[in-house]
Amino acid sequence: MRGPITLLTDFGTADGYAGAVRGVITDISPGVRIDDISHDIAAGDIAGAAIALRRYWREYPENSIHLVVVDPGVGSSRRALVGRVDGRWFVAPDNGVLTYVLQEGEQVEVVAVVHPRSLPRTPAPTFHGRDVFGPVAADLSLGAVLREFGPPIDDAVMLDIATASLDEGTGQGVIVHVDRFGNLATNIPGEWLADGARVEVGSRTIQGVHRTYSEVEPGELLALTGSDGWLEIAVREGSAATTLDAGRGMPVRVHVSSPATPGPPSTAADASA
Amino acid sequence: MRGPITLLTDFGTADGYAGAVRGVITDISPGVRIDDISHDIAAGDIAGAAIALRRYWREYPENSIHLVVVDPGVGSSRRALVGRVDGRWFVAPDNGVLTYVLQEGEQVEVVAVVHPRSLPRTPAPTFHGRDVFGPVAADLSLGAVLREFGPPIDDAVMLDIATASLDEGTGQGVIVHVDRFGNLATNIPGEWLADGARVEVGSRTIQGVHRTYSEVEPGELLALTGSDGWLEIAVREGSAATTLDAGRGMPVRVHVSSPATPGPPSTAADASA
Amino acid sequence: MRGPITLLTDFGTADGYAGAVRGVITDISPGVRIDDISHDIAAGDIAGAAIALRRYWREYPENSIHLVVVDPGVGSSRRALVGRVDGRWFVAPDNGVLTYVLQEGEQVEVVAVVHPRSLPRTPAPTFHGRDVFGPVAADLSLGAVLREFGPPIDDAVMLDIATASLDEGTGQGVIVHVDRFGNLATNIPGEWLADGARVEVGSRTIQGVHRTYSEVEPGELLALTGSDGWLEIAVREGSAATTLDAGRGMPVRVHVSSPATPGPPSTAADASA
Repeated sequence: MRGPITLLTDFGTADGYAGAVRGVITDISPGVRIDDISHDIAAGDIAGAAIALRRYWREYPENSIHLVVVDPGVGSSRRALVGRVDGRWFVAPDNGVLTYVLQEGEQVEVVAVVHPRSLPRTPAPTFHGRDVFGPVAADLSLGAVLREFGPPIDDAVMLDIATASLDEGTGQGVIVHVDRFGNLATNIPGEWLADGARVEVGSRTIQGVHRTYSEVEPGELLALTGSDGWLEIAVREGSAATTLDAGRGMPVRVHVSSPATPGPPSTAADASA
Repeated sequence: MRGPITLLTDFGTADGYAGAVRGVITDISPGVRIDDISHDIAAGDIAGAAIALRRYWREYPENSIHLVVVDPGVGSSRRALVGRVDGRWFVAPDNGVLTYVLQEGEQVEVVAVVHPRSLPRTPAPTFHGRDVFGPVAADLSLGAVLREFGPPIDDAVMLDIATASLDEGTGQGVIVHVDRFGNLATNIPGEWLADGARVEVGSRTIQGVHRTYSEVEPGELLALTGSDGWLEIAVREGSAATTLDAGRGMPVRVHVSSPATPGPPSTAADASA
Repeated sequence: MRGPITLLTDFGTADGYAGAVRGVITDISPGVRIDDISHDIAAGDIAGAAIALRRYWREYPENSIHLVVVDPGVGSSRRALVGRVDGRWFVAPDNGVLTYVLQEGEQVEVVAVVHPRSLPRTPAPTFHGRDVFGPVAADLSLGAVLREFGPPIDDAVMLDIATASLDEGTGQGVIVHVDRFGNLATNIPGEWLADGARVEVGSRTIQGVHRTYSEVEPGELLALTGSDGWLEIAVREGSAATTLDAGRGMPVRVHVSSPATPGPPSTAADASA
């Protein structure tokens, strides 16, 4: 049996909707393990769900099934997708929530669902998590193959994700995510900063790049390469989001140091102001 | 082995109480799967828990065990109940949280717990989730039968749930639940609106009944049959609760269209103003 | 196989970090059960995590593995610990989160991690939950023994937990935890109050000790022995934290009644004012 099935939704838990999805999956595939990743995605926040998914999908072993139901377009003509990417399975609405998975995966197959196998009822037009996506994930756990759900597609909806640019030692990017701690993830690759950098965000300039929070004093702002591999802006034991009044989409500029650049050499270890 | 055991409580998770319940169940019945439905029911909100339970209990297969601990009367003389309804098992305080299950189930047996089997300790008078309900659910997973817990009863406490009325094409009901998205569930059966309706709530009138959110513009108010089968009032990509400043108990009136009624025919598809 | 593995973190769920920890564990040890105790510990709240852990660790059977990642010092020189206490396994940063477990356990062994076995990658200096603690917990589930992780230690960091004192019938303690319901847990042993007491907290005096909430009227303040065995101050169907504007660290004084003390005898059942 394939599995586990992971769940990422914006349902919350208190209304019983997430429980209904678990119940339907259990009814179809009683032996499968179900992992709640989160039901606390902000309502309709497709981009936030895409970032969260990026953080865990590849940590799970092959044949895991990642179900994402953040679906503000439920009941419209948006398609339901089933995919296989680098050995993991995906079930999600066609609204961009799989953007990073499809961009970063190497072996990618996606089909649009036109023949769901186990439909416990006529799907309610407002609850495809229970009536379409959950059953499809359960069927995958029992061995369903992609093609039985529908035809392959190559035009999945992709989020318009800003790409960072690097030109003559100056990088331009944006904040793509604010986490629970107020850490700011950007779309600037950490490797650009391997030799140090000056980081500008809002009206603040951060000199140097650190390895980890504890290299600065509590309350101090710092730049580092986050656990995702991206430039992260943080405040030790505090919130960079609050300190900088910053949010998703805010521009970030980096001036990269490199051995080839004139001027004093600078490293992550000694460049902090 | 029976299972899984599902948990619905108002404990939150951060205090460790929900963990204690999981631990006790695991100690008694190590192999049983435990599904967290929610620990985020508002403190003491029996009616909210009853609605949530209504949404998932029947999605789970037979022999699932639904444990509900929303128990503001813990330590009082309120009884602990064990029930079997349409093949599923229930463990809960006798405070009305099982109202919909007992009303809507076809085969219903309920006993009051007087002889719990596995009591890991003298029950603390303030934590029956850990010391009574959890152990009873674990025992059920191991095959306990209803009668060994205590005598059958037929006077379980029932919530005083308002019933919607329909008289000469005018239906009266109330909002029974506000979900995370601000959607308003009512107690008015969706089938009353099968031929279209005019819905009045607060000072607003909604013309027509839609199938799903995406049939109206973002921000627009609509009426539809929710995934539970009840009339639901929603705002596409917004919150009807905020738009209408509405909450549980607020009256809702519907003027039902039907083919037998004089006047122009009206359907869900074309009745929208 | 040992297990389950329980998770207690301050990660929240919506950012995908907790999912990454689950994924890594599943990748290393596909068959182990993983129980989410909570990801809602307040950011960096080591003392709160220690109290939560105290509430569930011993409810789980022997060979359960309790993983705690509340780790504001991630990336600093703080050690990672693996312990075995009364048959349960523990994985946590060396920051005091295990204080109660180490104090209250009878058979205690602890080692500092210097040789983690399964490292899926070079550990990111900001995410040891995914890259160190999770893998260690997974290895424990597969049978790893303490000594292969590193040398035994006897100097684990302990929280400076205030100890309550009792002198000539007057006890002094503090509030150590405020739970979701606004109940106030103290560090005063419930047994001190077995024969009744007068409890002073802030500007309020509570006469007598009750067994459970329902012995007073809704909205009334009461003292009782909580499910942890400590003096708890509560408001029936309300919040003592709000009523008393009280929080962690606030002093509590008790004047203990006892048969040997002059004055009228007082019991839990009749001492309420």
